[in-house]
Amino acid sequence: MRLSFFVYFKHTHKHTHLVVRCSTLMAQTTPNHKLTVSGWAARDKSGVITPYSFKRRVNGPDDVSIKILYCGICHTDIHHVKDEWGITMYPVVPGHEITGVITEVGSNVKGFKPGDRVGVGCLAATCLDCEFCKSSQENYCDKVQFTYNGIFWDGSITYGGYSEMLVADHRYVAHVPENLPMDATAPLLCAGITVYTPMIDSKLHESTGKRIGIVGLGGLGHVAIKFGKAFGHHVTVISTSPSKEKEARERLGADDFIISKDPKQMQSKTRTLDFILDTVAAPHSLGPLLELLKVNGELSLVGAPDKPLELPCFPLIFGKRVVRGSIIGGMKETQEMLNFCGKHNITCDIETVTPDKINEALTRLANNDVKYRFVINIGDKKPSL
Amino acid sequence: MRLSFFVYFKHTHKHTHLVVRCSTLMAQTTPNHKLTVSGWAARDKSGVITPYSFKRRVNGPDDVSIKILYCGICHTDIHHVKDEWGITMYPVVPGHEITGVITEVGSNVKGFKPGDRVGVGCLAATCLDCEFCKSSQENYCDKVQFTYNGIFWDGSITYGGYSEMLVADHRYVAHVPENLPMDATAPLLCAGITVYTPMIDSKLHESTGKRIGIVGLGGLGHVAIKFGKAFGHHVTVISTSPSKEKEARERLGADDFIISKDPKQMQSKTRTLDFILDTVAAPHSLGPLLELLKVNGELSLVGAPDKPLELPCFPLIFGKRVVRGSIIGGMKETQEMLNFCGKHNITCDIETVTPDKINEALTRLANNDVKYRFVINIGDKKPSL
Repeated sequence: MRLSFFVYFKHTHKHTHLVVRCSTLMAQTTPNHKLTVSGWAARDKSGVITPYSFKRRVNGPDDVSIKILYCGICHTDIHHVKDEWGITMYPVVPGHEITGVITEVGSNVKGFKPGDRVGVGCLAATCLDCEFCKSSQENYCDKVQFTYNGIFWDGSITYGGYSEMLVADHRYVAHVPENLPMDATAPLLCAGITVYTPMIDSKLHESTGKRIGIVGLGGLGHVAIKFGKAFGHHVTVISTSPSKEKEARERLGADDFIISKDPKQMQSKTRTLDFILDTVAAPHSLGPLLELLKVNGELSLVGAPDKPLELPCFPLIFGKRVVRGSIIGGMKETQEMLNFCGKHNITCDIETVTPDKINEALTRLANNDVKYRFVINIGDKKPSL
Repeated sequence: MRLSFFVYFKHTHKHTHLVVRCSTLMAQTTPNHKLTVSGWAARDKSGVITPYSFKRRVNGPDDVSIKILYCGICHTDIHHVKDEWGITMYPVVPGHEITGVITEVGSNVKGFKPGDRVGVGCLAATCLDCEFCKSSQENYCDKVQFTYNGIFWDGSITYGGYSEMLVADHRYVAHVPENLPMDATAPLLCAGITVYTPMIDSKLHESTGKRIGIVGLGGLGHVAIKFGKAFGHHVTVISTSPSKEKEARERLGADDFIISKDPKQMQSKTRTLDFILDTVAAPHSLGPLLELLKVNGELSLVGAPDKPLELPCFPLIFGKRVVRGSIIGGMKETQEMLNFCGKHNITCDIETVTPDKINEALTRLANNDVKYRFVINIGDKKPSL
């Protein structure tokens, strides 16, 4: 995901931090956490990743055990390893863009068997009982817990995909289509679903020929272009970087490219777009983007800075425009997204790194020096840092 | 309307001001502007209103002439008379909440006859040809011109309802139901339609029992409560003023009341509302309001300050919430709104003033000292300032 849920909870549910401290203790004493797993963790705010041996629970009746092959590096990982949001429980094992192969399934598990190629994203646990859990929107369950730096049902802290194996409740696991490579599929579990869901919510899969804009050409934006084209739409990239135009058009298939810093270009496209997906996590005003939308047009926000965005009301009300938020997606939709990717051969553009290069990759990611996602090759390497 | 379209046009269409200056000249020379009309105008930035005699066009084939009985005083009038947005063409005759009786109809006019009780709101002219004009959303036509301080098709400056009579194209005139009083109906033509349209857009007329919030209890908010109750919903008023609770509940029929400055009260209502109508024109953060919405809930903005609002992204994306803008409504919807008001006996709560008290009323309105709308009694008084 593009940012962490936890900052939010910290602000609105004042006792979260207390719960966290209690659970740290519980994690160390939870009796069935008997599996010793090798992984990579940050130990303090330096954010430096080093090998880390830790315990996972023994595979339970609803669990599947997964030998991890690949794990994408999401921007959220940077925030967590450096405790930039003040909510990190060290040592933190990041990673929520996971692909791997099932090695064991619990007695209650249906639909998965050893050998299956699967993916795990941001979700580790939800209440399974609320209206959102019951309507395949469990990502909005208010008891949601995440794949790392979360608190599982048994009180243990969750450890993510920067590790050799994962025990996951099967309800938060998806099948990877046979034709998709495991490395370039990994980031779909977060970056992919993050941009797919708002496009579905705006019904972009129900018709073709719409004019859509993608703001920001990074890990999220480049997949969004692929989805937009696969749905059959005219895709405009809106970016601050003129240098990205050639690649956006020629390799990624964008139909148009606007430099957001050029007021003339922006003004010439007033009222031309039906939908905009805004993936930018840096502070910016929504005003110039809203002006690009037709009347009744929708802007969907998936990136989000810590500080409030500027929302000028005039372009909003004079065009009856809509700003909608969206965060990842439910598991049903995650599976549908992967199936759609299988059908259209959509994967992420990645740069694969070995575990000993994680720190370097995190530094380069912080400098936007990647096209477009780092993926750690975990399955082929023993921890060797 | 809660603010003027013109500020916006000034920012986005840089030549508007030039057009305005040319048209000032045209207005004085347009040959068929032969009717001498008495009204009330502001002559300069002092904003002081004094009697003003000016010319209107002779009733054309598509026009109706209206003896004005009442005209509401909208907050937008204050901005215009004082040129607070830098776009006022003096002398300005304000007023876009007009009720009156038809005295003459043009040869092309169908559906209106002399003696009909009618209302005129913000719209004076649109292109009649674009997709919005053709789909009853002419308020979003990008050639829209308004009832005062606008430029009519013939190049003349429009003068509003602070006057004894109006010549209006019949396509921007609505019938007033027989059972509604003309004075308390006048503000429905702007305040009423401004809050009615977003409620319809959010389908509040299609089901009952929703939980809706109205932010701000003023000229717009008090009518919105009445619509909300008439649609059959549970209505919560969200206000900064504890003193308004008794009246909101007992006289206006609100079911609940939250003090927006009380974080505990606000927090206790997290995720409780399906829809919020935000009528506040002062700068404020949307964050605390968004927290009140359920997942997938909608906040509709109709008030808007000149400066951008603060939009914190976390409450938006973690609840898949929606912020939508809306400005007045189309003419078809305006008629439907008036018919709905007739059926449910909905009017505005007003304080009637004579034309010689307009300045006093504007001052009191600027201080929010009115429950809830001033209406000028024009038809019963000759100008006598």
